[in-house]
Amino acid sequence: MTEETFRPEARAPRGFADKRAAQLRAERRIVEQVSAVYERWGFEPLDTGAFEYADALGKFLPDSDRPNEGVFALQDDDEQWMALRYDLTAPLARFAAQNWETLAKPYRRYAFGPVWRNEKPGPGRFREFIQCDADTVGSARPEADAEIIAMAVEGLEAAGLSQGAAVVKINSRKILDSVLAGAGVTDEKQKLAVLRSIDKMDRLGWLGVEDLLGKGRMDESGAFTKGAELSPAAVKAVMSLVMPGAGNGRTRAKFLSDVSGVTGSIGGDDGLEELSRIDAALTAMGIDDSRAFFDVSVVRGLEYYTGAVFEAELVHEVLDDKGKPVRFGSIGGGGRYDDLVARFTGQPVPATGFSFGVSRLAAALKAAGREEAGAARGPVVVIVFDAGQMGEYFGVAAQLRAAGIAAEVYLGSSGMKAQMKYADRRNAPAAIILGGDEIAAGTVTIKDLDLGRALAANIADNDAYKSERPGQQTVARGQLVAAVQAIVDAAR
Amino acid sequence: MTEETFRPEARAPRGFADKRAAQLRAERRIVEQVSAVYERWGFEPLDTGAFEYADALGKFLPDSDRPNEGVFALQDDDEQWMALRYDLTAPLARFAAQNWETLAKPYRRYAFGPVWRNEKPGPGRFREFIQCDADTVGSARPEADAEIIAMAVEGLEAAGLSQGAAVVKINSRKILDSVLAGAGVTDEKQKLAVLRSIDKMDRLGWLGVEDLLGKGRMDESGAFTKGAELSPAAVKAVMSLVMPGAGNGRTRAKFLSDVSGVTGSIGGDDGLEELSRIDAALTAMGIDDSRAFFDVSVVRGLEYYTGAVFEAELVHEVLDDKGKPVRFGSIGGGGRYDDLVARFTGQPVPATGFSFGVSRLAAALKAAGREEAGAARGPVVVIVFDAGQMGEYFGVAAQLRAAGIAAEVYLGSSGMKAQMKYADRRNAPAAIILGGDEIAAGTVTIKDLDLGRALAANIADNDAYKSERPGQQTVARGQLVAAVQAIVDAAR
Repeated sequence: MTEETFRPEARAPRGFADKRAAQLRAERRIVEQVSAVYERWGFEPLDTGAFEYADALGKFLPDSDRPNEGVFALQDDDEQWMALRYDLTAPLARFAAQNWETLAKPYRRYAFGPVWRNEKPGPGRFREFIQCDADTVGSARPEADAEIIAMAVEGLEAAGLSQGAAVVKINSRKILDSVLAGAGVTDEKQKLAVLRSIDKMDRLGWLGVEDLLGKGRMDESGAFTKGAELSPAAVKAVMSLVMPGAGNGRTRAKFLSDVSGVTGSIGGDDGLEELSRIDAALTAMGIDDSRAFFDVSVVRGLEYYTGAVFEAELVHEVLDDKGKPVRFGSIGGGGRYDDLVARFTGQPVPATGFSFGVSRLAAALKAAGREEAGAARGPVVVIVFDAGQMGEYFGVAAQLRAAGIAAEVYLGSSGMKAQMKYADRRNAPAAIILGGDEIAAGTVTIKDLDLGRALAANIADNDAYKSERPGQQTVARGQLVAAVQAIVDAAR
Repeated sequence: MTEETFRPEARAPRGFADKRAAQLRAERRIVEQVSAVYERWGFEPLDTGAFEYADALGKFLPDSDRPNEGVFALQDDDEQWMALRYDLTAPLARFAAQNWETLAKPYRRYAFGPVWRNEKPGPGRFREFIQCDADTVGSARPEADAEIIAMAVEGLEAAGLSQGAAVVKINSRKILDSVLAGAGVTDEKQKLAVLRSIDKMDRLGWLGVEDLLGKGRMDESGAFTKGAELSPAAVKAVMSLVMPGAGNGRTRAKFLSDVSGVTGSIGGDDGLEELSRIDAALTAMGIDDSRAFFDVSVVRGLEYYTGAVFEAELVHEVLDDKGKPVRFGSIGGGGRYDDLVARFTGQPVPATGFSFGVSRLAAALKAAGREEAGAARGPVVVIVFDAGQMGEYFGVAAQLRAAGIAAEVYLGSSGMKAQMKYADRRNAPAAIILGGDEIAAGTVTIKDLDLGRALAANIADNDAYKSERPGQQTVARGQLVAAVQAIVDAAR
């Protein structure tokens, strides 16, 4: 096969999606609305590059020749390993450590953009997605966490998930830690296994989690997943915290009073004190129990969290293909990560933040029936009758654009019928027809495409259709903009 | 060294920049304004993923084990080579080929986002940058090129480079091809070497280009770059086309008449016919010779162009550090690429487009003195006197935000003086002071920071400064929003 005849297959790499107008507009609207919330709370924008050095990304230390587990990594020409960011938090920690001396502190920044995870792609599982984050670096105050939670609540609402459609759940890892310490579990790896087991509640249910906390779990296919190997007493203690009823439907005050009976160690008291101050600040900010509540089953999968953790979730009931209710799962999450900047500097720099999954939020809006109604309208299309008159067509299009109306001249090579079909497919509100007669008479014919379709539905006879020209009007050139504007306004 | 004490260095990979608020806001404004132009012309948004299969990127066919020349490439776990996109055109060609049957044609799309080039980084030379493109796929009409040029002109002006500050230069490769054919040059590699030599005009001047067209060029360091090895007669013919005076200052009509004398072959006539139709369409669109003109020295470096090529350039004089005028160079460019989609399908699909380099455009605005005046204002900062009164502070901040005023409570642990300094560094228009007295009296003290600075400049005595409290006013809580709004409005 020579290079001349080599024809690559036109396909996107696995796990990477092409996004067209409707999806893009929905996602951009979300990013704009959430960013506006972040700006209103005094957060300033930051954009870091797509790549970080692998050692700076932290979770993926270079312990092998090709450290690309979970990330897209490659070696630069100076032999250093770089990887595409897997979230916006690790690059922020690197930036904050690098610029700490020059920043106004606490440093409050928001960011949005793609992140990449080198995971097995599948239907609906992508390896590139958009996150929209806000973080406060340099404040140990639980009120900083409360602010982040309040912004997450306002972000959900700004995007269209009004009160009652979605909530933010809050927990502190210190509470679970204290229970585990009480049960004699101090090994970090075992604690992480416990956290990851609890994190699977949505997917596996309580019994699945209970199995994973103990010896392990066999799934329907017979495959066995090794468990966290807690003692039966420890499993019981943990389950008493995470079982439903322990979070949902309780006020924050009731939660604080309930949990204070279970924890006793110093860590647990710390966690309770933090949650108690978060509660007070949320109340002062006007965020009540229906919009943000405590739930000890919230753990978040990422390893870097050290204190409070948050998760945004859809409340609206979602039905699967068979009409059965399913859990929609997380729309975003965050928490406190007091050690991430210290990885670089050795100096403690407390930090907290939240990240929206923008596509998840778009999907949640869709599931809750809160999508913007209807597809975006296309431009007005100027039909081409005679290539010798292109100047006239461009003049009309320019006149419309100057009035702020999106307009284009058809630039393909097909005839009238195909051009009208093109205007339909672009979802154009109107087509402009400028034949020799119109040009000579100084007029223009405007076809209202919505009206034309509506009227045509009532005309059975093809000859009648042709003679009646439904939705068409011919006006003087001076009236073009006003007439088209009226159609565009009605078509919105 | 154990993992516990391993401290990675906090630094971004070479050639990747962190962008802070001022730069980001400037670049986002450009993207919004240029996108609005594209939308008004009837182009719809598209976003493709960061990765493409290496074979789909075309210019970088996998002819070695690690085909990462110029791109960031890696091998997926199914052994296929993927690479980060180096522009937005190659992914569009792949998308159009993949979805051709389902698209409304001609397919008009715009896109913006980062692209990556694995080049040697240096001061001001980045390996990641933002492009903002519009393309028409499926139209062979020169009027489609004219539209793209007109949008480039409008994009420059929408971004702030009004008429006279920047221009779009236009050329057709067919004209140069015809001259080369007349001089017996038909080898594609030699033609490409000629194009690349001409493309270096800005940097090397005419004499440098003349050397590169012939045997080659020795630079000041003594390093020798091999030339295109044209015959002396061919060098002369090419130079007569590209020398200054052959483009600048001539009307499009004069150019067409001048060049028609030089070219004779069929290709040259084709090129002239295309440029002549582009001229007519631009005139119909109201784009005159001062905003877009022909210049045969425009070649563009990318290999995939097949016909007309365009380049946007700053006209405004730019001075270097020593006050000497320097050429600013290209802000964006594009052209016709009729073979890029056919690489996949084998079917001819003519296409044309333009790409703005967003950072280049931002730099051009700066060089032309057209930046937005002043830095963006930070939020109003609520000062913390007493951690026991956080609820009060959050209440005030919430009240301001509800009125659309960006506001935050200081969440660090420093005292009053450091908090005022923080407010200054955030470029806050005002600070809110809510001491025990104010809380008891139901009042609030507002410090106008701009006014305070202005007044303080006139107060020499430190005691006087303290007693006069420049720029401070105390108002009833009910008047908080109105009083702060007045300060914020004045601070814009």
